[in-house]
Amino acid sequence: MELFFLGTGSGVPSKHRNVSSLVLQLLQERGTNWLFDCGEATQHQILHTTIKPRKIEKIFITHLHGDHIFGLPGLLGSRSFQGGTTPIEIYGPPGLKEFVQTSLKVSQTKLKYEIRFHEITEGFLFEDEQFKVMVKKLEHGVASYAYRIEEKNKIGELLPDKLLTAGVKPGPIFQKIKENASVQLPDGRTIYREDFVGPPKKGKTICIFGDTRFSPQFAEFAKNSDILVHEATFGPADEDLAYEYFHSSTRQAASLAAMAKVKRLLLNHISSRYLAKDIPQLLEGAKEIFPNTQIVNDFDQVTV
Amino acid sequence: MELFFLGTGSGVPSKHRNVSSLVLQLLQERGTNWLFDCGEATQHQILHTTIKPRKIEKIFITHLHGDHIFGLPGLLGSRSFQGGTTPIEIYGPPGLKEFVQTSLKVSQTKLKYEIRFHEITEGFLFEDEQFKVMVKKLEHGVASYAYRIEEKNKIGELLPDKLLTAGVKPGPIFQKIKENASVQLPDGRTIYREDFVGPPKKGKTICIFGDTRFSPQFAEFAKNSDILVHEATFGPADEDLAYEYFHSSTRQAASLAAMAKVKRLLLNHISSRYLAKDIPQLLEGAKEIFPNTQIVNDFDQVTV
Repeated sequence: MELFFLGTGSGVPSKHRNVSSLVLQLLQERGTNWLFDCGEATQHQILHTTIKPRKIEKIFITHLHGDHIFGLPGLLGSRSFQGGTTPIEIYGPPGLKEFVQTSLKVSQTKLKYEIRFHEITEGFLFEDEQFKVMVKKLEHGVASYAYRIEEKNKIGELLPDKLLTAGVKPGPIFQKIKENASVQLPDGRTIYREDFVGPPKKGKTICIFGDTRFSPQFAEFAKNSDILVHEATFGPADEDLAYEYFHSSTRQAASLAAMAKVKRLLLNHISSRYLAKDIPQLLEGAKEIFPNTQIVNDFDQVTV
Repeated sequence: MELFFLGTGSGVPSKHRNVSSLVLQLLQERGTNWLFDCGEATQHQILHTTIKPRKIEKIFITHLHGDHIFGLPGLLGSRSFQGGTTPIEIYGPPGLKEFVQTSLKVSQTKLKYEIRFHEITEGFLFEDEQFKVMVKKLEHGVASYAYRIEEKNKIGELLPDKLLTAGVKPGPIFQKIKENASVQLPDGRTIYREDFVGPPKKGKTICIFGDTRFSPQFAEFAKNSDILVHEATFGPADEDLAYEYFHSSTRQAASLAAMAKVKRLLLNHISSRYLAKDIPQLLEGAKEIFPNTQIVNDFDQVTV
């Protein structure tokens, strides 16, 4: 799993940071990408990466502010134009469907694939064999949410020596054993996978927060995550502004990371009032509270 | 007057050409800019120019395809964020208002200025002391229009020698005479401007076409323009595709320019299938038909 940051700015685009979007690349896990938020020109940012719009399987929107959704109609159109034919699942607050459908209708954009809209509320969102996704309502001017993506534990490594000892010879049968709970051998014996794999590999957990005021009550939701992606619109000197505009500061986000005992904190949604030269100081302040912090830039890639 | 090209590509953005938008800069004439079409990331392109979104007075949309309108909600929001308070007039086909209003409503974008929508139909659009704008329906998959912007003749230069001879001494009175049809002097005499200015300066005419199939019937609308901005999605080898997709080729646009006897032809809406190395050949083909042709690039500025 990799996180690929496409837009790490806040509110309006600047020359150096686009408005919000990031990709959770699940190419090894399921051959797809999950997109979180889609500010204007997200598809333009993608042009400078190896990300394929047709491989975007799911889009999660944290909230409906323009800097998080105005790139959606264009991206959906281009996904079709560039050969995307598989359905896409879009998760977001009520109103998102109206925005997307009106944009596509008025522009007469014909998609070669189906969009499945899912309105989010707090709690369980969905689960499949690989992932479980939960949602938490935050504190913002409009309904804004955090997503918690829990990867399930993965089956351990196949133990070839143990299979050989049991008289199973290497070949395609090894892969079949890896992929199935039990396999019948040509000689009639049944092989149970659990007997021939090492300890399960622990799945990763990622929390991606939408815009929000700081509140200690959100720590529980992010608890023990491998990575917390949190907004940090303001520096510590402007926490009054952060409160007024329903945002967080760098140090507030770091406090939440510490409370939640996450492994790593990635800060995005940086206001354009902070120039590149201001970033080291903002980062140092956050690191005093939570050392494993990084302020991410557009096009940063982080292995989960 | 200057034309400033912000997006000269077609359909989807590429690394080198954004989707459609251009600015008619009227800074000397009225201290404002008029925007024609607003594809996604038009506001991002503007970041790399000296254009001020708050000085955009009017936006003209040629048609509702996404590559011509998806940048509008973001631009309108940023215009407000960056201090725009004056009303904005938006001209376009029916449906545009629904797209903009839904986008602003869903995203809860609060503008600090008023939007006045005007649905376009063929013929006369508006007229003021400086300009007259006409509209012509073209031939595209959706209703698509051309705009003809006629600048009115401007009052000639003030003739100071003639004023001095008539006993009018230099001072603020000169400016007053220039700005009014008649002025009463302190001595009771009335000065008529027409007696103290040189010959009128001829206004310029610019035609800006939306996406369209070639048709000789459009020549009359562009007749004698100083500048014709015309789409050229395809090269001459792909005129069958141009017809099929309701677009024009470089040579077809040049033919129209020749028929319309315009002074200068600017080609935009270039398909990303043509690379930078292909452009000289496309241009040469068009110039064989209409010599004063230019294929414009993003950020090209052309003095009218």
